[in-house]
Amino acid sequence: MQHIISVLVENHFGVLARISGLFSARGFNIDSLAVGETHDPSISRMTIVVTGDARVIEQVDKQLNKLIDVIKVTDMTQEDHVEREMMLLKVSHNTKNRSEIIQLVGIFKGRIVDYNTKTLTVEVVGDAEKIQSFIDILRPFGIKEVARTGRIALQRG
Amino acid sequence: MQHIISVLVENHFGVLARISGLFSARGFNIDSLAVGETHDPSISRMTIVVTGDARVIEQVDKQLNKLIDVIKVTDMTQEDHVEREMMLLKVSHNTKNRSEIIQLVGIFKGRIVDYNTKTLTVEVVGDAEKIQSFIDILRPFGIKEVARTGRIALQRG
Repeated sequence: MQHIISVLVENHFGVLARISGLFSARGFNIDSLAVGETHDPSISRMTIVVTGDARVIEQVDKQLNKLIDVIKVTDMTQEDHVEREMMLLKVSHNTKNRSEIIQLVGIFKGRIVDYNTKTLTVEVVGDAEKIQSFIDILRPFGIKEVARTGRIALQRG
Repeated sequence: MQHIISVLVENHFGVLARISGLFSARGFNIDSLAVGETHDPSISRMTIVVTGDARVIEQVDKQLNKLIDVIKVTDMTQEDHVEREMMLLKVSHNTKNRSEIIQLVGIFKGRIVDYNTKTLTVEVVGDAEKIQSFIDILRPFGIKEVARTGRIALQRG
């Protein structure tokens, strides 16, 4: 099962390497990871998506809490939460398929952020399922490049 | 100077830990990091924002290229590129300031993704400057929580 782990950390040197090292030492692969400062620049939030059973996730949770720079660990999967991901996707287009692609971008509430005669780049936001659908739907047109942020999440209420 | 390094990697076990370890061993702090699969699930893209002078960045580039799972390293800062970041921000509200907050969300083209009588959560997308302005403008209302994805980037054209 996929878990979304949110980790608040002191923004100290090397903390990211220590945390990702801890995951790999425990045999977890990280499906996605997003790290950025919070509104307090001395504190960063890491949102880590990993696959594993509840017992092993609990172990990781304990290990994380032992690290000196870790302030708080939350398994969002066990909380009512909002999750979102953002993607930039560059796709080929031509006179024949252009309108269809632009229509699809509209359906997914995407924004075209770069455009030239051969390719266009779309910014799209949603849950993991929506992002995956958008990739699958645009694949036949010729996807050139993709950058995904990985998921971020906050508890509701 | 801040550099945005985009690294395409084989989606193998532990690659993230090796790469973030390489940065910390070299004395770089990572300002933000976003990792996700590309349209090819066997390949992930890491977008890393680091501060450093051009010579040291060049060294990191060389070190990265030596890692077996690294396919391609691009310093986006030296290319014409599109960059975006996404943030979820939870802010307090009350009957007095609600309209003002909702108006500000509109100005920043944000979307309210969770709402209750005490707090609301906004999804907002933009460059680092826009994200920072949004935080600064909402700070006086009482920000409860923030999750940022870190920047992602694709070359133009």
